[in-house]
Amino acid sequence: MSIVVTPATDAIAPVVPRSGRLRPLGPPAVRITGGFWGQRQQINASATLEHCLSWMERLGWVGNFRAVADRLPPEHRAGREFADSEIYKLAEAMAWESARTGDSSLAPTIRKLAADVAAAQQPDGYLNTAFGRPGQAARYSDLAWGHELYCYGHLIQAGVAAARVGDGSGLTEVAVRAADHVRRTFAAGANDGICGHPGIEMALVELARLTGEQGYLDQAALFVERRGLGRLGDAGFGRAYHQDDVPVRAATVLRGHAVRALYLAAGAVDVAVETGDAALLTAVAAQWEAAVARRTYLTGGMGSHHTGESFGADFALPPDRAYSETCAGVAAVMLSWRLLLATGDARYADLIERTLFNVVATSPSADGRSFFYANPLHERSRAEPIPPDVPSPHAVSGARAPWFTVSCCPTNVARMLASLSAYVATVDDQGLQIHQFADAEIRTTLADGRAVGVRMRTDYPADGVVSVEVTHAPPGTWTISLRVPSWARGRAVLREPGGTRPVLTGPVAVTRAFAHGDRLRLELPVTPRWTVPDPRIDAVRGTVAVERGPLVLCVESTDLPDDADVDAVRVDPSVAPVDRDGAVVVAGELVRLPSPSWPYRAPGISPGGTRRAAEITLRPYHSRAGRGPATMRVWLPEVH
Amino acid sequence: MSIVVTPATDAIAPVVPRSGRLRPLGPPAVRITGGFWGQRQQINASATLEHCLSWMERLGWVGNFRAVADRLPPEHRAGREFADSEIYKLAEAMAWESARTGDSSLAPTIRKLAADVAAAQQPDGYLNTAFGRPGQAARYSDLAWGHELYCYGHLIQAGVAAARVGDGSGLTEVAVRAADHVRRTFAAGANDGICGHPGIEMALVELARLTGEQGYLDQAALFVERRGLGRLGDAGFGRAYHQDDVPVRAATVLRGHAVRALYLAAGAVDVAVETGDAALLTAVAAQWEAAVARRTYLTGGMGSHHTGESFGADFALPPDRAYSETCAGVAAVMLSWRLLLATGDARYADLIERTLFNVVATSPSADGRSFFYANPLHERSRAEPIPPDVPSPHAVSGARAPWFTVSCCPTNVARMLASLSAYVATVDDQGLQIHQFADAEIRTTLADGRAVGVRMRTDYPADGVVSVEVTHAPPGTWTISLRVPSWARGRAVLREPGGTRPVLTGPVAVTRAFAHGDRLRLELPVTPRWTVPDPRIDAVRGTVAVERGPLVLCVESTDLPDDADVDAVRVDPSVAPVDRDGAVVVAGELVRLPSPSWPYRAPGISPGGTRRAAEITLRPYHSRAGRGPATMRVWLPEVH
Repeated sequence: MSIVVTPATDAIAPVVPRSGRLRPLGPPAVRITGGFWGQRQQINASATLEHCLSWMERLGWVGNFRAVADRLPPEHRAGREFADSEIYKLAEAMAWESARTGDSSLAPTIRKLAADVAAAQQPDGYLNTAFGRPGQAARYSDLAWGHELYCYGHLIQAGVAAARVGDGSGLTEVAVRAADHVRRTFAAGANDGICGHPGIEMALVELARLTGEQGYLDQAALFVERRGLGRLGDAGFGRAYHQDDVPVRAATVLRGHAVRALYLAAGAVDVAVETGDAALLTAVAAQWEAAVARRTYLTGGMGSHHTGESFGADFALPPDRAYSETCAGVAAVMLSWRLLLATGDARYADLIERTLFNVVATSPSADGRSFFYANPLHERSRAEPIPPDVPSPHAVSGARAPWFTVSCCPTNVARMLASLSAYVATVDDQGLQIHQFADAEIRTTLADGRAVGVRMRTDYPADGVVSVEVTHAPPGTWTISLRVPSWARGRAVLREPGGTRPVLTGPVAVTRAFAHGDRLRLELPVTPRWTVPDPRIDAVRGTVAVERGPLVLCVESTDLPDDADVDAVRVDPSVAPVDRDGAVVVAGELVRLPSPSWPYRAPGISPGGTRRAAEITLRPYHSRAGRGPATMRVWLPEVH
Repeated sequence: MSIVVTPATDAIAPVVPRSGRLRPLGPPAVRITGGFWGQRQQINASATLEHCLSWMERLGWVGNFRAVADRLPPEHRAGREFADSEIYKLAEAMAWESARTGDSSLAPTIRKLAADVAAAQQPDGYLNTAFGRPGQAARYSDLAWGHELYCYGHLIQAGVAAARVGDGSGLTEVAVRAADHVRRTFAAGANDGICGHPGIEMALVELARLTGEQGYLDQAALFVERRGLGRLGDAGFGRAYHQDDVPVRAATVLRGHAVRALYLAAGAVDVAVETGDAALLTAVAAQWEAAVARRTYLTGGMGSHHTGESFGADFALPPDRAYSETCAGVAAVMLSWRLLLATGDARYADLIERTLFNVVATSPSADGRSFFYANPLHERSRAEPIPPDVPSPHAVSGARAPWFTVSCCPTNVARMLASLSAYVATVDDQGLQIHQFADAEIRTTLADGRAVGVRMRTDYPADGVVSVEVTHAPPGTWTISLRVPSWARGRAVLREPGGTRPVLTGPVAVTRAFAHGDRLRLELPVTPRWTVPDPRIDAVRGTVAVERGPLVLCVESTDLPDDADVDAVRVDPSVAPVDRDGAVVVAGELVRLPSPSWPYRAPGISPGGTRRAAEITLRPYHSRAGRGPATMRVWLPEVH
């Protein structure tokens, strides 16, 4: 895999590589103006950010910083050892949100958070409220589990965001001091440790991109190279948990704790791109390939084990015990996006779309004030009520919870939604590439200095028509490229000035001397369709699922007659699913089986019971549990 | 459910109820003389007991007791908070082993262990090496996780065994002092707590049975009644983990941590039987019924989640992630045995047989020096080598390990095997009941004082012929009853003096004036057979298994040509499996599928690949991994 060098951009975006096939755009170059994602960005802005802040103030996670500054006894510190990182992620989310809207209403809140954080920073740059004070464990005394470097990673990402959006909060300066402390402490010849939870690697690279300071990149590369040699010990779950079993460039698949694996891979891509390390980029791309081919749920979800929050073996993808952590979804988008920028391969954008619609969008409730942490594809029990005032255990999955004892997901969703416009489109020397479909305004400048602009309009994913109208057309030819998703294979059509043509999956490019008002119209076939699993996925043998456009659908007991359970559903994939009244309906049966005394029997002996024909209603998986506790399943057994 | 009162016996056995449908027998009334179980008892005696002792001496778990006596600083205490219990379980195993052989070679070892334990007991009877000393947590400061009462449970069971086998080690006296301390501390009106890990309930009942002291029974009943009201808090896994969600008599199914659930249920049966509480007995029997119908693996294994080592939801029985802890197998035998004694229902003996052959017998290696802790029904990866000198993480499942950081299983297997003759046969007023088949000598006395004796000979489970010859025949009629397993339905034959007849499943009784030398011959059809799962078990839809007599069989990669993986196997259940060369062979295919880039596709698009006809060899699940690392599966997809 070769690394293409393109000129740097000064995009306001989380990831701004100095080289790569595509160059990112962010606000204000891309503005999502409405539709599916616009609505979610609004709710994130109006509800989620404040929700996260108030929980963390109430639980004392914000106060931890001031308590350090005030030298309060450490037994008053609140939250888990990584609680600091949640404040950083929220600050990052608020920074992107400021850039999204261009208004300054969040500025005082960000400044106050930044001041609290700064007050807790030690003179040498060290910053962590859980370590290093009298009565606490010593600094870096538990690298495997202490999360100190992980927390710096989020601090630095927040600091980079603050600088790029120009919020003047002071977070950037705090982050730089921390990063300099890390470089001094963990340089070659000093402490040769690594963090049990990756994350600092991509943060340091981004800081190098922001500042042009090579030392941060070198430190990130050191952290990547040190991993995989057993420095972290066995950790109870085996070395793969921390990706400390095999060096990054020797590994062939993503494994172990899913978020750790994905953050590490993202950081390794960043290092590879900045250092021109094609072998490292190739290795990570192959790991992505293997994970997507054999260790990913239909939803794009990753991580099939509750134990260790980890990837399972190849094709071990149980729908009921899917962990598919929301943060792993966010992290998968982060990894795929970096690979997309580096290579331009539309498969990465395909997976981003799938993950955004079916994992990231699934997590928050319609009001933006409760969240899924795990995202299984089969819910056997109706959820118990979630207590509104105390943090929930994080593996609760049948109902969204307002907050968790380990509450990484809400702030991760918040920063992803606030920065979502950065994932919509890119530019290269020829023109503009549209990767994700949304109502959006895009204005940018091509490499030769020509300003271009388009307006995208769509009811996607409810509807498959995406209209792109040229709003700024410089003289001369340039290219607008649109991604045709792989799910639209053989059925997508492009209408362009001068004609209509069927288009293959992948990027479809239109190069011409566009005039103001020219329109491209991509028509994607969002009629619902059956999907079958690979025969090696034991856990869903004999079942089928329904997808519609990029959406995975599910059955909920809420939609079944007579309070039937979803496990009573059998479907007939010989009959095409149809749209009806905003939902999808398929032909099937409801079975009722007698209770056995022993659930194994000789072949040919019928289990008995009754069956009756029924129309089965499916709705988007992301909307699950939105109408109250329900049983739910994505993979539906076939009628016999 | 009514409780039948029968006269007490003074059997040398772990469970000796004062009432119930059947009365237990143990050594020397029942002696296993050879065959499948005799061989395993020999290995247990000659290897496993010493193996366990040497590990616990080397790791310092034995030394913990002497360290308390010597007032050594508590930071030298070794092992987990429940390590004391392993010494008690080993002492119990050694006590049963002494009774089994009748020789006194283990007596010095038991006495030494008993002396160490006694030296650590406090003047008020308190005994735990992990709590209560300066620098340790206070006594009973962490009932949910501290395992203090759990450890007493095992101490008391060891003390009861010591008394019944008459070993004079002094363990009984230590146990009585501890039990008296527990009664004072946890009486009504005093500390109203319960232990996070049940076990003391059945121990206290057994001590009441041994001593006739009602107070122990009352305390056991109190512990049973106190549970289910949320005293233990939420514990991270939810209240069901500790069975503290619903009172025992209100619960409808076994749930939460499997060993905890099964020990608690066993203790509740003991309380119910001794107090004549028919409602409690009925409740537990219904919980057993529900768990067996919907939450039990084909092997008899219980516990489908690694997380919380717990039962899953109804029909959530993934074969690859089956936890099926060996200790849950031992505990299931303990529960089923108590229910069998109380009711006489042969279904309990059926499950005991299934669990003994497919869980308990699976755990130890052929040399008795390594063990499975988890017993999944599908192993996707060849096991990594197990380090021989350090304890392994307990969820390691692809290879047997010599010891574990949490090492409950080896000593549990040891005490079960040493006491196994107690589970073979019982008596009632009419005669003798044979529940399990083994080469054995049985001599006992009927309620009317008549001495009877039989000799059982069988190559079971390799062969299905069980011969019972009368060796002591008093005047008059009496009954010999043999269990016809439910798996033999419709195909079992009994030859008796005077004729041959087909017999139904359940107990088949022959009542006559037996003469010395009279023979009964039960012929069970151990030809291999196909078994299909209930359609509600999603995880094994479209697959079949092979059983042979009481044995569940499996395919291992070791037996496949060209190093094929077990996941390549497809089988044809329209062709009967056959015995061949000590194994079982079925018709099938080996498939080879191409690697997909995305493991989901439209229906009607073949995944491609090749298939070739193959004979597939299966062997008993209990022998798995005996020939080196291998992939393995029990449930095999059908050919299409």
